[in-house]
Amino acid sequence: MTTQGLDGVVAASTRLSHVDGEAGQLTLAGYAVEDLAPRASFEEVARLFLNTHDLARHRAIPDAALHLLEACAAARTPPIDALRMAAGTLSLEGEADTAKAVAAFPTIIGTYWRLLHNQPPVPVRTDINHAAHFLHQLTGTEPPPETARALETYLNTVCDHGLNASTFAARVIISTHSDLISAIAGAIGALKGPLHGGAPGPALQMVFDIATPENAEPFLRAKLAAGERLMGFGHRIYRVRDPRADVLAAAAERFYNTAGDRKLYALARHVEATALRLLREYKPDRRLDTNVEFYTALLLHGLGLPVELFTPTFAAGRVLGWTAHCLEQLRDGRLIRPQSAYTGPAGLTYAKNLASMPRN
Amino acid sequence: MTTQGLDGVVAASTRLSHVDGEAGQLTLAGYAVEDLAPRASFEEVARLFLNTHDLARHRAIPDAALHLLEACAAARTPPIDALRMAAGTLSLEGEADTAKAVAAFPTIIGTYWRLLHNQPPVPVRTDINHAAHFLHQLTGTEPPPETARALETYLNTVCDHGLNASTFAARVIISTHSDLISAIAGAIGALKGPLHGGAPGPALQMVFDIATPENAEPFLRAKLAAGERLMGFGHRIYRVRDPRADVLAAAAERFYNTAGDRKLYALARHVEATALRLLREYKPDRRLDTNVEFYTALLLHGLGLPVELFTPTFAAGRVLGWTAHCLEQLRDGRLIRPQSAYTGPAGLTYAKNLASMPRN
Repeated sequence: MTTQGLDGVVAASTRLSHVDGEAGQLTLAGYAVEDLAPRASFEEVARLFLNTHDLARHRAIPDAALHLLEACAAARTPPIDALRMAAGTLSLEGEADTAKAVAAFPTIIGTYWRLLHNQPPVPVRTDINHAAHFLHQLTGTEPPPETARALETYLNTVCDHGLNASTFAARVIISTHSDLISAIAGAIGALKGPLHGGAPGPALQMVFDIATPENAEPFLRAKLAAGERLMGFGHRIYRVRDPRADVLAAAAERFYNTAGDRKLYALARHVEATALRLLREYKPDRRLDTNVEFYTALLLHGLGLPVELFTPTFAAGRVLGWTAHCLEQLRDGRLIRPQSAYTGPAGLTYAKNLASMPRN
Repeated sequence: MTTQGLDGVVAASTRLSHVDGEAGQLTLAGYAVEDLAPRASFEEVARLFLNTHDLARHRAIPDAALHLLEACAAARTPPIDALRMAAGTLSLEGEADTAKAVAAFPTIIGTYWRLLHNQPPVPVRTDINHAAHFLHQLTGTEPPPETARALETYLNTVCDHGLNASTFAARVIISTHSDLISAIAGAIGALKGPLHGGAPGPALQMVFDIATPENAEPFLRAKLAAGERLMGFGHRIYRVRDPRADVLAAAAERFYNTAGDRKLYALARHVEATALRLLREYKPDRRLDTNVEFYTALLLHGLGLPVELFTPTFAAGRVLGWTAHCLEQLRDGRLIRPQSAYTGPAGLTYAKNLASMPRN
């Protein structure tokens, strides 16, 4: 008997989000993702999820976090690991405010990216909104409104998604009545895994590798004929198109109409259309559609974010859901403590088997 | 509908340990806990769980961990939080060896305790065993053999216990194919919660408060009459006596016969006997027996460990199980991704409800 992965097991009730994988619908605090994400500010979504009004006041990070990021930069630690370690120190200045991690993630990410490239961190500002501040922490300049809006739409789109593995990890941790920062640091640890958010590069890399529209079909046919997976297509939960893909596709369309590499955008759309056509040809019995990863990569790349920051940026959105789920778990939940099935030996006796082993 | 806590749901198969709550039996890698824990060295148990032979080689911690512990000491961070933060940096020097966290926990705990008390950390030694090294890191001196043996029995006894919340958190995190250190840092976050390992003091405090044998019965009667819980009695899984309590009771008996405050030990046994008698009187329909916490407190206190180090010491034992479960999950498991039941609103539309909210 192997591990079941808790497929289909209801492990928590939530008022935060609802994933309907059969219908291809995602509800965020009562709103359809395609209604809320492109129109609300991140601050408005944070108010829906956390009832918090003062994200901007919590953007600073402890000195110890800065020093840890310096050590991470010296060791060339991947940004998502640096985020995990630094986020874990946010309780150093006492019990963290509910919105602390949400507010501080852009500061950690921007500070680390600059340290990694021998640039001084940018002082925190409180007079620009969350999405703009994220980009400001990275670049030191205020981004154009359409760039900040595109990032805001992305952060809103990925801010929550039912009991995904990182959110579930956060709920398991806080279910012991531990603290919020412990839960969030654990959630980042889950998010960084390649089966969750930790492998966002390949979908975009495939578009780069294809390079020209006429190369799309032979390239993709070769992959499918070799039995390889097409990165950016298919999802464990959605049996139809991931609604987030549409939201991000529309955001990318808007963004690439005003800035960015319009030719890359057209190529990506052509690659997507070709991939969907060929997937129906090669795997007619499966419903593999474009997933959120494909348009995440296209959109974040357009905004000037390097591939190494895709997963940290995902975390900067999802931390809103993690935080809200933790508060909900503390309020409504109980200790999450499943059973295991034992498949090992039984009835061994120490004296016979181990007594002659050398002690060290 | 409220969260279920996954009671009775089998979330993983394991060859590592088996908790039979009805029979009051705990099997560790095929051995009864009462057979293995008091007789095997911690190194032998580590070999059973991890097949590792070189714990002693991995005792050093990164410079960044030391500096972080200094910052934690300056902020008077509780030791379990300092352990969580410092353990999270063990990947800073590259992908950590499988046994890294197990080997390094005593170094982190001892170093932090000394920094917190303005004492210089003790250089790591490789020529004494794990339990002795734990105490050496704290005190700078080699402990008497019976003290090291008592700690070793404790570490063995608590090294694994099925899918408890921290072990489950570790498995959820690593199920995304994240890294071992991320999973272990998350597990510490879960362990520190008061519903798991984060409230070990009260059982001992109760013994101190009772102070004299003749005060036991009136004190405990007053508590039970007021409807209060008796700390150190009862467990979510065990319906009969927790077998670990017996192992630790025997270890405490042996230890207090050679060292420590024999009078305190006698008082604790008297408190236990009185509590069990009164529990049967006040709650005849429930089977509340002495749990592992009661004897943990008595034993660790006898070894000279302060209450603040009880949970970190628990972690120093349980990290063996966390590590082994992570390797098992990576080998046999799949992504752990349960479902949630949505209980929130639906069909809200953004324009009507939010458009008039101020943007910031």
